[in-house]
Amino acid sequence: MADREAAKSVLRTQKIELPSWAFGNSGTRFKVFAQRGVPRDPFEKIADAARVHAHTGVAPTVALHIPWDQVDDFQVLGRAAKDAGITLGTVNANVFQDDDYMLGSVTNPNPAIRRKALDHLLACVDVMDQTGSRDLKLWFSDGTNYPGQDNIRARQDRLAEALDAVYRRLGDDQRLILEYKLFEPAFYTMDVPDWGTAFAHCLQLGDRAKVCVDTGHHAPGTNIEFIVAFLLRAGKLGAFDFNSRFYADDDLIVGAADPFQLFRILFEVVTAGALAEDSDIAFMLDQCHNIEPKIPGQIRSVTNVQEATAKALLVDTDALAVAQAAGDVLGANAVLMDAYNTDVRPLLAELREEQGLDPDPMGAYARSGYAERIVAERVGGTQAGWGA
Amino acid sequence: MADREAAKSVLRTQKIELPSWAFGNSGTRFKVFAQRGVPRDPFEKIADAARVHAHTGVAPTVALHIPWDQVDDFQVLGRAAKDAGITLGTVNANVFQDDDYMLGSVTNPNPAIRRKALDHLLACVDVMDQTGSRDLKLWFSDGTNYPGQDNIRARQDRLAEALDAVYRRLGDDQRLILEYKLFEPAFYTMDVPDWGTAFAHCLQLGDRAKVCVDTGHHAPGTNIEFIVAFLLRAGKLGAFDFNSRFYADDDLIVGAADPFQLFRILFEVVTAGALAEDSDIAFMLDQCHNIEPKIPGQIRSVTNVQEATAKALLVDTDALAVAQAAGDVLGANAVLMDAYNTDVRPLLAELREEQGLDPDPMGAYARSGYAERIVAERVGGTQAGWGA
Amino acid sequence: MADREAAKSVLRTQKIELPSWAFGNSGTRFKVFAQRGVPRDPFEKIADAARVHAHTGVAPTVALHIPWDQVDDFQVLGRAAKDAGITLGTVNANVFQDDDYMLGSVTNPNPAIRRKALDHLLACVDVMDQTGSRDLKLWFSDGTNYPGQDNIRARQDRLAEALDAVYRRLGDDQRLILEYKLFEPAFYTMDVPDWGTAFAHCLQLGDRAKVCVDTGHHAPGTNIEFIVAFLLRAGKLGAFDFNSRFYADDDLIVGAADPFQLFRILFEVVTAGALAEDSDIAFMLDQCHNIEPKIPGQIRSVTNVQEATAKALLVDTDALAVAQAAGDVLGANAVLMDAYNTDVRPLLAELREEQGLDPDPMGAYARSGYAERIVAERVGGTQAGWGA
Amino acid sequence: MADREAAKSVLRTQKIELPSWAFGNSGTRFKVFAQRGVPRDPFEKIADAARVHAHTGVAPTVALHIPWDQVDDFQVLGRAAKDAGITLGTVNANVFQDDDYMLGSVTNPNPAIRRKALDHLLACVDVMDQTGSRDLKLWFSDGTNYPGQDNIRARQDRLAEALDAVYRRLGDDQRLILEYKLFEPAFYTMDVPDWGTAFAHCLQLGDRAKVCVDTGHHAPGTNIEFIVAFLLRAGKLGAFDFNSRFYADDDLIVGAADPFQLFRILFEVVTAGALAEDSDIAFMLDQCHNIEPKIPGQIRSVTNVQEATAKALLVDTDALAVAQAAGDVLGANAVLMDAYNTDVRPLLAELREEQGLDPDPMGAYARSGYAERIVAERVGGTQAGWGA
Repeated sequence: MADREAAKSVLRTQKIELPSWAFGNSGTRFKVFAQRGVPRDPFEKIADAARVHAHTGVAPTVALHIPWDQVDDFQVLGRAAKDAGITLGTVNANVFQDDDYMLGSVTNPNPAIRRKALDHLLACVDVMDQTGSRDLKLWFSDGTNYPGQDNIRARQDRLAEALDAVYRRLGDDQRLILEYKLFEPAFYTMDVPDWGTAFAHCLQLGDRAKVCVDTGHHAPGTNIEFIVAFLLRAGKLGAFDFNSRFYADDDLIVGAADPFQLFRILFEVVTAGALAEDSDIAFMLDQCHNIEPKIPGQIRSVTNVQEATAKALLVDTDALAVAQAAGDVLGANAVLMDAYNTDVRPLLAELREEQGLDPDPMGAYARSGYAERIVAERVGGTQAGWGA
Repeated sequence: MADREAAKSVLRTQKIELPSWAFGNSGTRFKVFAQRGVPRDPFEKIADAARVHAHTGVAPTVALHIPWDQVDDFQVLGRAAKDAGITLGTVNANVFQDDDYMLGSVTNPNPAIRRKALDHLLACVDVMDQTGSRDLKLWFSDGTNYPGQDNIRARQDRLAEALDAVYRRLGDDQRLILEYKLFEPAFYTMDVPDWGTAFAHCLQLGDRAKVCVDTGHHAPGTNIEFIVAFLLRAGKLGAFDFNSRFYADDDLIVGAADPFQLFRILFEVVTAGALAEDSDIAFMLDQCHNIEPKIPGQIRSVTNVQEATAKALLVDTDALAVAQAAGDVLGANAVLMDAYNTDVRPLLAELREEQGLDPDPMGAYARSGYAERIVAERVGGTQAGWGA
Repeated sequence: MADREAAKSVLRTQKIELPSWAFGNSGTRFKVFAQRGVPRDPFEKIADAARVHAHTGVAPTVALHIPWDQVDDFQVLGRAAKDAGITLGTVNANVFQDDDYMLGSVTNPNPAIRRKALDHLLACVDVMDQTGSRDLKLWFSDGTNYPGQDNIRARQDRLAEALDAVYRRLGDDQRLILEYKLFEPAFYTMDVPDWGTAFAHCLQLGDRAKVCVDTGHHAPGTNIEFIVAFLLRAGKLGAFDFNSRFYADDDLIVGAADPFQLFRILFEVVTAGALAEDSDIAFMLDQCHNIEPKIPGQIRSVTNVQEATAKALLVDTDALAVAQAAGDVLGANAVLMDAYNTDVRPLLAELREEQGLDPDPMGAYARSGYAERIVAERVGGTQAGWGA
Repeated sequence: MADREAAKSVLRTQKIELPSWAFGNSGTRFKVFAQRGVPRDPFEKIADAARVHAHTGVAPTVALHIPWDQVDDFQVLGRAAKDAGITLGTVNANVFQDDDYMLGSVTNPNPAIRRKALDHLLACVDVMDQTGSRDLKLWFSDGTNYPGQDNIRARQDRLAEALDAVYRRLGDDQRLILEYKLFEPAFYTMDVPDWGTAFAHCLQLGDRAKVCVDTGHHAPGTNIEFIVAFLLRAGKLGAFDFNSRFYADDDLIVGAADPFQLFRILFEVVTAGALAEDSDIAFMLDQCHNIEPKIPGQIRSVTNVQEATAKALLVDTDALAVAQAAGDVLGANAVLMDAYNTDVRPLLAELREEQGLDPDPMGAYARSGYAERIVAERVGGTQAGWGA
């Protein structure tokens, strides 16, 4: 078993970014169930995100989604975040919720709509300049529903053109993070359906273009940790969007559906040194809390990532390497499973106490009265949501 | 090749039921794109459905969805349908869009919510009594998102209890049609996830309980025509919800994603004699036209089903039986493919002309001016949609 | 957390049946890699199985596969097993490895081949009479590769006829266990592709016909624990064939691919009381050890099932029921996860010591010298395998 | 509708390569059913391949598999092919059927085994020098079955090293074609699981390294025509391995499972100009005829590809472009479907007659007496197979 203290020293520096939209209402195409106490504006979202950080100590940044989090003055928003103990993180563009985008945004056959979409992307870089964000995360809902609907190759050309324009607009310390997704909302082709497509475009763009792996965006049977290992080897992994799934892009709490998979992913991250303090991999959550309360849902997500990370750090990599080199199939697997089967909750409780935190973040939040307070206070106004 | 005239005589009696909701707006969880000319009330939906029937001649009924199609007086709605040349068909219950149903309707752990859901189902039978509908179609969005969230077995008990209460309320000429679905909106368990579950409950209920096969509700790789053949053999197939999919429950135009599969399904239907005039199988569409115009989307769907049916009717079943009995794998397959590879559009054009219809329903609709008229007239009010 | 001692008392009575074929060579269609020390006959397989039981204490029976394990006198084989400390268990029929079965066995279009297959199944009951086996497990590779190749419905009729003949031949204490499988070796239809099909046939046959759930035989995304819970509720679960998979029917060591799924399955078993001493559920392994050594592969499989069972037994069902009734989604999930996240290896080590066993079965086997001995002794002859 | 004569002029130059192994016995891991008349050596395989070409006119080359087709003198084999009217084509390496390769070939943790595998690959280039083959097709069964079994990243390093050594050995007119596959025979990781991995390695190697798309090697739901379009746009598509599947790598006759998909794939090929006479895309079959006769199975495969190609050539690309540009979803889809729904068998019959061939290749073969002759003559010896 690897060194507990060494594991703790890495865990102490781990950072997980929260998505502002996880605090608003979300749902399926069938129904968005409203919850009481949900934020009505970006400031209330930031307050909730800060609360997650207060209890976990490892969630110091919050990602924004434009226009869901559009405010008049991002410096004010940034100060609000700072006052609450966190900072603004990745900027997520949104070119999928205007009626103009019915047939695509940057890949739309209509050049005027492409221009409109590109302008939004560029405006997001303006926001980054104000917020000091490093990363622009791009997810395109673009695609087609029917064979023949549009020209697959022409859409790639249009995509490449838009990406290039955005990339050239970025500052030297800014990055373009390209997300891929197998399907939904398009049901025949997606314009960036898989890691290979995102990777090829990022290669074309340059060093500051990287791929985002959303753990829910793959075909059944896909080995996600292989993709992670491959992208890390190629220097092209930029970010994670963590969540979990049983079927499609279910957006459940990360680690809820397949905790062993999350462990295997984080083991590849650890193996590649990508948890080091100078690593530039962004570890984000991207989830929906459709039926569970949102702040506890985020806390649980954070602790699930922590637990998987702790287990990954406990793998006895020397013993593993020996068994692997010897072709000892069961022995090598046993080394990995030994770490996975370890109960790391005591180690994390200890870590939190050393950091002056309550060892039980879920319990501490429940006892804090915050949930009751926001239900009481957040009355009137319009609850934040996805805007669909 | 089988007899063209025999095929036409069956095609002449084919009936495909349209869903009222296909004429309203629909979309994904990310966005519902509004279209111009969309109906604002059930009467306008019925007008649109009648239009599809006028051009195709095989869509004489329209299914209702309660409460989306709730009106004060269903007799008035029925007369409007009759005046437009169609009749009201299956009644679809909806127990998934009230905030109370967040954790389930008839399987909810809370008995008061179960009662509320059951009351709605019983009220739907009241509607059937008024509309003269034969079938009550039940789809339950009930399920859970997280392991442990609820007791799988207890939910089955609750489901059985509700189904039993509804079944006992039905009149002698009314049927309960139970739909199953692999996932969405629940992401860990669905309470009726597969045909086996629906079949077992229907067996328990009695002869007037039957299974609905929605062609988009299966796991990847599922052989749907096998299920169809099995349910027909067991006398338990009640209805189809036709649509098509590449990935999940994409709800695309039937026949758009895998026309060969649609042909194979209809071949099992034909083989079992389930297209006979006295057959009690309901052939319904259940689709979303998120990005394509809705009335043409329905016309295309109807003609796709007709084309697949025509091909299925053209299979030389004598030659097929001979090849099958001889274990002639390629020969038997060739007999089937010979029919599939036939271009049946001329046969269907001929049939339409014999029935006094335009041989080209899509073209006739385009030339009719109806599309322009509804765009011009349906201004103001609230467009119909899924109510999500 | 539930009572450790109560958990141990159930674990003490747990029984896991080993498959004789797991000790022979196996592989994929591309290659069977031979391993040294592999048994050359059923007696050597039984010796290996007994060895697994000696180290684990919970694998007291071994399943036979006819004709792979055909011997002149099964009483002699039974005595050999008894002398080694185990007994003979389930009899598995094999109607898929004769050239006659290319197009099916009991569902073959040729009645003479159907008769031959049925005769083999009846002969398997003769074997059961000699071995004292309770269960006849039937897996049919029957199906078709091409649409049209054979008549789906006629094949069901033939299947029903054969099952009926076998069922009527059984003694009062014997059972028919029907296995289902999505695909492979047939690639268009399987004649028993899913639990619904197996369930419907077993219902038709009678009380002593039950379904076998092989954990590797489902479509992607299938919720296996739902099926387990459903069959247990219906009194129709007869047996498990445990193994694990990432893609198709990979036949890896149970618990190796998704340990959380195995835990969820066993939790449904525990919840339904199906681990009670008087339970008639057969818990079997059915795996291939293509690249790992076979005896350790079986030991690991047994301990994986034990660990998942121990966790399932530790679920605080009272707290779970309270959270479920309250609709506390995260709370209920947390109760389940609390047990899953527990490291049960110390508990199992303790249990083994109480039973006079080495607490570390893998280590004890490695130290025993048995592996080296069989490599040295089993020279010459023909290694056992699948006979493909 | 596009010009029939233009379509025919392209069809006249189409070339489809046959795999020598399709004429030998094949099966699943459960059973290889032997067929009468199967070749006993590479010369008999070539005779059978030539027979397919004689009847179809579009299959003038046959791919070899080393060592399955190893002969003392490939010049003799080449002359035999030439005498039979065909030529030798792609050379396929085989580093998966030696006991040494149990844990991998070029990615094996053992350097001696890696060296052995590389030597085989280099020897295959020697064969190419003798046969005059342009392409070396590499499929690696390499991968792992269990998490932790080996280091994912280290295996990529080893793979890259081996590929580089092979690439450097190639002559200026020779190419390396890298195939990918999701799973089987490895069940946890494959070392080249997807197109992205193959693409990245080929980019690294250089211009003469290209990707092979095997239509059966993808995860469920993968849009293969997207990959084809993407690779064509990037200039990195080297070859197809055609076959079809309902579930996994079923290796059924191409076009048998989803003829619409095959059409869509070929439409992307046509659109990109990759059917032009100077195109360097290799169109190969790679199939198993487990239960159907092999020569007719190959003839049917060839005609299925021809039919899909003919339909793809008939798409009215001008009308399509207009509809796509206008965002006319249903109109654009209709243009594509119009070609798909056309019965192109008369056109192909006409083409064959113009080429002096029988318009019905399957019938002509059946009438030729060849099947009966090989059954009578090929008695004794060992039938060719996969060597598993």
